[in-house]
Amino acid sequence: MLTDVLINGEKKDNLNITDRGIQYGDGLFETIEVSSGRAVFIDRHLDRLQLGCKQLHIPYPGNPILLSEIDLLLEGASNAVLKIQITRGAGGRGYRQPDSVTPTRILSLHSFPKFPDSFTQEGINVTSCKGRLSSNPVLAGIKHTNRLEQVLARAEWVSESIQEGLMSDQQGNVIEGTMSNVFMVKEEKIITPLLDHCGVAGIIRGLILDFCPELGFVAEQQLVTKECLNDADEIFVTNSVIGVWPVRMIDNHRFSIGPVTRQISAYLEQLKNQEIHA
Amino acid sequence: MLTDVLINGEKKDNLNITDRGIQYGDGLFETIEVSSGRAVFIDRHLDRLQLGCKQLHIPYPGNPILLSEIDLLLEGASNAVLKIQITRGAGGRGYRQPDSVTPTRILSLHSFPKFPDSFTQEGINVTSCKGRLSSNPVLAGIKHTNRLEQVLARAEWVSESIQEGLMSDQQGNVIEGTMSNVFMVKEEKIITPLLDHCGVAGIIRGLILDFCPELGFVAEQQLVTKECLNDADEIFVTNSVIGVWPVRMIDNHRFSIGPVTRQISAYLEQLKNQEIHA
Repeated sequence: MLTDVLINGEKKDNLNITDRGIQYGDGLFETIEVSSGRAVFIDRHLDRLQLGCKQLHIPYPGNPILLSEIDLLLEGASNAVLKIQITRGAGGRGYRQPDSVTPTRILSLHSFPKFPDSFTQEGINVTSCKGRLSSNPVLAGIKHTNRLEQVLARAEWVSESIQEGLMSDQQGNVIEGTMSNVFMVKEEKIITPLLDHCGVAGIIRGLILDFCPELGFVAEQQLVTKECLNDADEIFVTNSVIGVWPVRMIDNHRFSIGPVTRQISAYLEQLKNQEIHA
Repeated sequence: MLTDVLINGEKKDNLNITDRGIQYGDGLFETIEVSSGRAVFIDRHLDRLQLGCKQLHIPYPGNPILLSEIDLLLEGASNAVLKIQITRGAGGRGYRQPDSVTPTRILSLHSFPKFPDSFTQEGINVTSCKGRLSSNPVLAGIKHTNRLEQVLARAEWVSESIQEGLMSDQQGNVIEGTMSNVFMVKEEKIITPLLDHCGVAGIIRGLILDFCPELGFVAEQQLVTKECLNDADEIFVTNSVIGVWPVRMIDNHRFSIGPVTRQISAYLEQLKNQEIHA
């Protein structure tokens, strides 16, 4: 549930329809866990936002203004989800952007979703989506707001016993979940699909790739076929709100929840707590 | 310039940020020429809108309510551009759509752009865009609001002497202009790229494909390579606002403005006038 919104620093929740975010999905966003009133891994989120803005040629509003607006919005908040959306701002009809772009900042606070503990403890059920991701190296990795593919994929199942849908590229290679990144463990090696032509490079994904060596694991981004995934020892999905969810089932294929997933999940939790109590 | 807006029949120009149109570009649109107060080829536009809604699983609002809102908006208007945008309506955070979707209708009226007569008479200059279109058969053809690829392509040139950019798919085959469909004439045959994996199937494109036999032309949708296009006798681009613009130059390659383009342009004008004065 949406609890509070700031648009360009103002307490309001309406956007003029000339905004290119409405017209063309012309923007990008971050979804951030708020725990004990702190925006978790905020530096990484702002880094990615800035990188995405650069890739889409949207002027980055800058950390100082975003951080001060986050402070304002999080006042009195404890556990929540913070969404930061940046659009290319107002524009005329037509794809051509105005000569001078003034991006729109939409910061919104949402109640933290109530997930059963079992998702983290016993794992989740995943379905393979029919809908596939399209390839475009220029947009790959960015958390932009052109998300029809994810919306259509998420609409493929209604059963509450399925928690995530696995998406492939047009060639059938595994890329990610509708809302998460996917990791597999095979002989102590940690593998996650390469996101050079599609997919969203999640913050938690990046963090795990970075800290794997500290835990003595080899982590690799590579092409992952469905057969390769089915052959994994362990599988887990990640995002900034769920953290790590082990996968116990993909379609009718069962996986065990193993020690590597547990270790990564615990280490992530530790890093999060360090940041919150810093 | 935006002159008037109706959102769900109400005179207002702001949209709540919970709208999935803002969150994910979760919707689609039509851009319609208004001439002598009439929305030109409105039946075709509404047919395409309905088809697109079906493909995206967005409940179609229905012709009666849209037509009555168009009437209201066009009151007193003469020449203008009408934009109809349909979104999946309000929703929570996350790709999952609400159990019951109430789509948002945004109808906006814009002043008609002032194009020099020379564009129609002497043709336009086109540049080949570096940015390529991604392939997704599920989204191909639909005028949806996930338009970052077009936005980025349109930002590739600033020169006022270039009027359109040519876009290819990931394999380098010609698909369309950033805001128009492309036709080539070769030995009296009319050819336009097949849009089965990407591109927007424009109203004027459909109309031309339909009426070509009446003019004694064979019209075909097929795969068009850049070499094939460069080898054309005539090239023209189309959309609902510009009608037909002959192409006189793509990059450094010059084309003559031939009789077939002239004939198609004139016939389209005739059909438009018939509809306006019906």
